[in-house]
Amino acid sequence: MQKAALPKGTRDFSPTMMFRRNLIINTIKKVYEKYGFDPIETPAMENLTTLTGKYGEEGDKLLFKILNSGDFLASADVEVLANKNSQKLTWVIAEKGLRYDLTVPFARYVVQNQSDITFPFKRYQIQPVWRADRPQKGRYREFWQCDADVIGTKSLLCEADFLKIYEEVFQTLGLKDYEVRINHRKLLEAVTVSIGFTGSFTEFTVAIDKLDKIGWDGVGKELSEKGVDAAKVELLKNMLLQLPLTENTLETIKNQLVDCQEKEIALHELGQLIGLAESHLSQVVLDLSLARGLDYYTGCIFEAVIKNSGIGSVSGGGRYDNLTEIFGLKDVSGVGISFGIDRIYDVMDALQLFQNQIDNQKIIFCHFDEKAMIFCSRWADELRKEGIKVVVYPDQKKIGKQFDYANKLGFDLVAVVGDNEMAENCVQLKNMTDGSQSKISLNELIIKLKK
Amino acid sequence: MQKAALPKGTRDFSPTMMFRRNLIINTIKKVYEKYGFDPIETPAMENLTTLTGKYGEEGDKLLFKILNSGDFLASADVEVLANKNSQKLTWVIAEKGLRYDLTVPFARYVVQNQSDITFPFKRYQIQPVWRADRPQKGRYREFWQCDADVIGTKSLLCEADFLKIYEEVFQTLGLKDYEVRINHRKLLEAVTVSIGFTGSFTEFTVAIDKLDKIGWDGVGKELSEKGVDAAKVELLKNMLLQLPLTENTLETIKNQLVDCQEKEIALHELGQLIGLAESHLSQVVLDLSLARGLDYYTGCIFEAVIKNSGIGSVSGGGRYDNLTEIFGLKDVSGVGISFGIDRIYDVMDALQLFQNQIDNQKIIFCHFDEKAMIFCSRWADELRKEGIKVVVYPDQKKIGKQFDYANKLGFDLVAVVGDNEMAENCVQLKNMTDGSQSKISLNELIIKLKK
Repeated sequence: MQKAALPKGTRDFSPTMMFRRNLIINTIKKVYEKYGFDPIETPAMENLTTLTGKYGEEGDKLLFKILNSGDFLASADVEVLANKNSQKLTWVIAEKGLRYDLTVPFARYVVQNQSDITFPFKRYQIQPVWRADRPQKGRYREFWQCDADVIGTKSLLCEADFLKIYEEVFQTLGLKDYEVRINHRKLLEAVTVSIGFTGSFTEFTVAIDKLDKIGWDGVGKELSEKGVDAAKVELLKNMLLQLPLTENTLETIKNQLVDCQEKEIALHELGQLIGLAESHLSQVVLDLSLARGLDYYTGCIFEAVIKNSGIGSVSGGGRYDNLTEIFGLKDVSGVGISFGIDRIYDVMDALQLFQNQIDNQKIIFCHFDEKAMIFCSRWADELRKEGIKVVVYPDQKKIGKQFDYANKLGFDLVAVVGDNEMAENCVQLKNMTDGSQSKISLNELIIKLKK
Repeated sequence: MQKAALPKGTRDFSPTMMFRRNLIINTIKKVYEKYGFDPIETPAMENLTTLTGKYGEEGDKLLFKILNSGDFLASADVEVLANKNSQKLTWVIAEKGLRYDLTVPFARYVVQNQSDITFPFKRYQIQPVWRADRPQKGRYREFWQCDADVIGTKSLLCEADFLKIYEEVFQTLGLKDYEVRINHRKLLEAVTVSIGFTGSFTEFTVAIDKLDKIGWDGVGKELSEKGVDAAKVELLKNMLLQLPLTENTLETIKNQLVDCQEKEIALHELGQLIGLAESHLSQVVLDLSLARGLDYYTGCIFEAVIKNSGIGSVSGGGRYDNLTEIFGLKDVSGVGISFGIDRIYDVMDALQLFQNQIDNQKIIFCHFDEKAMIFCSRWADELRKEGIKVVVYPDQKKIGKQFDYANKLGFDLVAVVGDNEMAENCVQLKNMTDGSQSKISLNELIIKLKK
């Protein structure tokens, strides 16, 4: 006998969990589609050449690699084997890996299918990804991403659409207390010019990114060590506050920063965004301390959080200019966001937002003998013709046991059939919520259930 | 620069393919749910101990194995490495594998969650599976299964429900010329008794299963060699015809077979099934030559084909008695079926059944300048509030180019906005099918699109 167990960091989803996950996924899907995004899917496996080098050295280690089929050691170097050099052997015995995110497969897809794609291309993709991370609370080795991207246009209309999408998704899910943080890479570049930071842009973003952990004193100290003078550190501190995304805010920032091309571009684009997203900005803040992923993003960046949830960001994204370049397609600008389904699930669970969501109404037929079961089965046929979901209890068990089953599975209505009901061509309909009971004909039942 | 390519045997799904696949998947899902099946999902990865030994020796070879993370060679035997013994090394360096079907993970799920499950448990599961098979036309290394099972009851009501499910799924998909073949393990066991076959039951089913390939002459010869006399071979030949599943057919078979317990059980169960599925049997045939999977199945078995499609079965299933035993849960009878999404897709494509299925209506806004684009974006907001799917062309391009885009993406309606339209607070609405054009207000447009 074998133990029934799962690999660590992976999960089964029960019917209840599926119902809740589908609430989230279907909401996001519906909103994406309303904004003109079409679905695509890519395989779980990609060639390792497609995946490696895209996620940094740490990312390469976290890739799940798939052992080649057959006699995979045949071409392995004897010395590599003798030295037990796992790292070197990996590239010989594994050609494929599991998808680590949806972005790289999307880039590969766009380049591979470029002649069939009409740009600007708006796609969404909801699939699991796998990372050999150390499993811990809320972090899994298999988890779901839910990406939307527009590729092949620099229009700020796309960024505006994503702000509207955030609004609609969070409102629909009941996550009313959300906040979207926005920043612009070029704005932050203008900041480094303005405070006279002489290190690399990455060094700057790494320092800023530590704000959460080491606070202003720590960041200020680090910047001072890199040669930024005290007055400039103070200026920066004022700028890195979260501010409403308004024309006024842009005006203030314009005056705080020295003139440079980066400032012009960033303020122009953010101004356009304000014009296009207008009435959708009440829960959007400009947050110059948002620096995550700025190695990769070239324009606006986004992060969405649910306030007071105790859980970090539930979505992120931004504009990039060179996603497809590595596969040979240059100068294709795009912008995208990604929702973390598992995080949203945890937030909604913590906020008890699933309590009021009930599965669609269900009716189960219970019966006193096999003849009655056949009667039930015929009624079930008629109800299903009307699109109604019906279960007939399949076994000859005591009626109490059948009721137990109905209760445990959360059926709202139980139809009971014995000799009397068959004789009168009706069922006893019992409401499991209030316990009320009444005789009802097939037509009446159809009308009741179709309401 | 890297080549954008996919691992062999895997596929991307474009928006058009996704739309078609979703037609199939959503149809099956909806029918399953109507019959009271609830969804579950299991992880892509399972422990190799869970998977190996369940699919025969050939199956074990076809499992995709996942390389352990980190220094996987550390504990490898030096001799195994020196001998380049791939097979032995596999078990040391790979602990996990990709799901090969949905049945074994379901068995593992049931045993692992038995205390939370209310039996009879009706679950469906639609997920990809992976097999390191040699890729060929219509056979992929990643493909989708779509299973439903009832576990924890021996009731024939479940078998009857699956016949109804076949009917509803195929009718809804437009696959009207389907046929469900049904057989019963115990009926075939009674046949072996009746013809005096002395070999093992497996030998018998293997011989029968060759009917397609070697014809009656071949099968007859093989049976004769195993000691079945000529008259009995002739009797068998008559019984292995496809017959309608009716009481009459059962009566005929009853007279042809010698009395034995297997015959009693099989005919009793098939009789019950006829009573429960009554008006749903017109496309069901009793086919005693159907022997596939009888090693595993213990009662009724099913196979569904679309006639004249040139493609083999699109679904199969049956009753089993020991699915969960290997994981330590005995005496749990179940019955299930599985649709092959990829095969159904190919059949529907070949029969041109996707031609009449159109994606939901879409409208795109085109414009003459940025001001007009902002105007469009506001109208789009209003339409989306009504649940309407809208795209605004994101760039400032010549109107002809915008029309090209609308055409290529198959938009039905194009709303055009320039200075005049903005002044009059209306749009020019162009019907892309008949070329007609008219001025229309926002309210009129909403009414038109909500129809």
